[in-house]
Amino acid sequence: MKYTVHKKIGNPADVLHVEEKESAPLKAGEARVAVLATPIHPSNLLQTSGQYGVMPTLPATPGSEGVGRVTKIASDVENLKVGQTVMLAGGSTWQQELTGPAAGFIPLPEGADIQQLSMLTVNPLTALLLLKNFVDLQEGDWIVQSAANSAVGGYLIQLAKQRGIKTINIVRREKAVQGLIDLGADRVLVDGPDLAEQIKSATDGAPIALAIDAVGGETFPKLVDALSYSGTIVCYGALSMEQPTLSSIAIIFNDVTVRGFWLSKWFETATAADKQGAFGEIIGLVASGALKAKISATFTLDQIEAAVTAAAESGRDGKVLLIPNT
Amino acid sequence: MKYTVHKKIGNPADVLHVEEKESAPLKAGEARVAVLATPIHPSNLLQTSGQYGVMPTLPATPGSEGVGRVTKIASDVENLKVGQTVMLAGGSTWQQELTGPAAGFIPLPEGADIQQLSMLTVNPLTALLLLKNFVDLQEGDWIVQSAANSAVGGYLIQLAKQRGIKTINIVRREKAVQGLIDLGADRVLVDGPDLAEQIKSATDGAPIALAIDAVGGETFPKLVDALSYSGTIVCYGALSMEQPTLSSIAIIFNDVTVRGFWLSKWFETATAADKQGAFGEIIGLVASGALKAKISATFTLDQIEAAVTAAAESGRDGKVLLIPNT
Repeated sequence: MKYTVHKKIGNPADVLHVEEKESAPLKAGEARVAVLATPIHPSNLLQTSGQYGVMPTLPATPGSEGVGRVTKIASDVENLKVGQTVMLAGGSTWQQELTGPAAGFIPLPEGADIQQLSMLTVNPLTALLLLKNFVDLQEGDWIVQSAANSAVGGYLIQLAKQRGIKTINIVRREKAVQGLIDLGADRVLVDGPDLAEQIKSATDGAPIALAIDAVGGETFPKLVDALSYSGTIVCYGALSMEQPTLSSIAIIFNDVTVRGFWLSKWFETATAADKQGAFGEIIGLVASGALKAKISATFTLDQIEAAVTAAAESGRDGKVLLIPNT
Repeated sequence: MKYTVHKKIGNPADVLHVEEKESAPLKAGEARVAVLATPIHPSNLLQTSGQYGVMPTLPATPGSEGVGRVTKIASDVENLKVGQTVMLAGGSTWQQELTGPAAGFIPLPEGADIQQLSMLTVNPLTALLLLKNFVDLQEGDWIVQSAANSAVGGYLIQLAKQRGIKTINIVRREKAVQGLIDLGADRVLVDGPDLAEQIKSATDGAPIALAIDAVGGETFPKLVDALSYSGTIVCYGALSMEQPTLSSIAIIFNDVTVRGFWLSKWFETATAADKQGAFGEIIGLVASGALKAKISATFTLDQIEAAVTAAAESGRDGKVLLIPNT
């Protein structure tokens, strides 16, 4: 079976390659799963190049999540059946096969879009938790987000719409506007020097209690300026790779709170009930087609160099997926 | 009676002057109080020069707080007696006399240090709320603060010491170190490029859950770097007048929260019970001498220009007070 691996830290397109090995033997309580689809996330690329919150243990097979089909189970496994569609959430998904404890593979509804299901645990969950865990939003409230054309941005627009929460969405390019309006965005604004003013007029002066930022740099302070008294800005990325400046006036006199969100830590610290609740909601919405993301391209494992290059492209419109068993 | 006034916004030493007027007539329910001592706070100077969160209504008499002695009461006033020492918290204290509703003058313990009592409502209350309202600190926990040689900084050292909370105190000058150790500081560090490292070695690697910053600029990110996972930094001033940069890595991966504190808003939003509790604690401690601030100089109202100049001096060591009835 083929798997992606890197033996040193570096530029993903340079250090990642594909090797072959024997399938791992199936032990008691284990299942073997063929990986059907697994996405390339920015965090995977950052981790491969050593720019993430945790360093990989080398040699490493990247991959955060995916969807698989059970091909074999140990005789004592009762929670899974051969042929069943399952969620892969244990990492190292950029390979043709995963073998491990059956309890680690979570059954998914059958008949749903496999590629959409392969992106359950990172982006839609991030969007849901950004929306639910920081500010107690009510129907009719406004929020503002940067990087609105990202996968998280798209999920957030859809989840907010379902809750009656109104979104102001910041993008870098005019051509991204219509797609987000089609997804349910209430306002889409192109980032520029007058952004804070644009945001204020977009809501007709209604308060904005939550800003969600994945850009940093010059975008962050404009979102801070757009917040109403006691508003919160949550950072979950720094796509600009530039550190923002912080307005002491906003923090002290406008009582703005700055928070961060990192999904990996949520997985470590959330209760089982919280996780089940969040996953249950997301799985239902994605399986029914009520929540989806754009896919810009799919690649085989052998095309890993082209795949990570496409995923790293600025202005990419949609997720890049690996389809390991083609 | 003499009073300080400014009729335009500008440099305090230029725009402030002293005028005389008749005492206001005493109406039913009112008391008249002679102002014994009233401090000059940085916020008073910022407000006079139009650099504060709220603009003064001109002509304006500055002053946030002070201590007075009741000189006259209307015949229907029952909560006050002539000769009684009272707290002044209604503003415009830089004058010889205040006349207003008796309920606005809060009786203070007799026999305590008048000058110390004149500084009850701004700095010690700020220090107390910074210590109590953001992070649930336990005995033995470490905190770090900048501007440790300020009035708030000194009160904070004393209040933390009384609770068994250990303080790391950042100052700009070596000569401030000994005074803070005498007050009860556990560590005093002089700000410099290696500050974050100095802080880490000062606690022997023990976690720091709370940083308190009144400086901004280059000091703020060093305090952020010193925080342990899920730590909070609270900003209550920006003495450097420079905006800090914000580390996205600290916010996202170290889960740091940035908050602000502005006492004026606390006065607006706190419950009566919260206010009574906080004042009660502070009044008791100051009246007993367990909580005190350094006083660098006192001036009469006629010396207002020299007084505000002294108060604005960089490196001033202690509060500047006005003694209006001398």
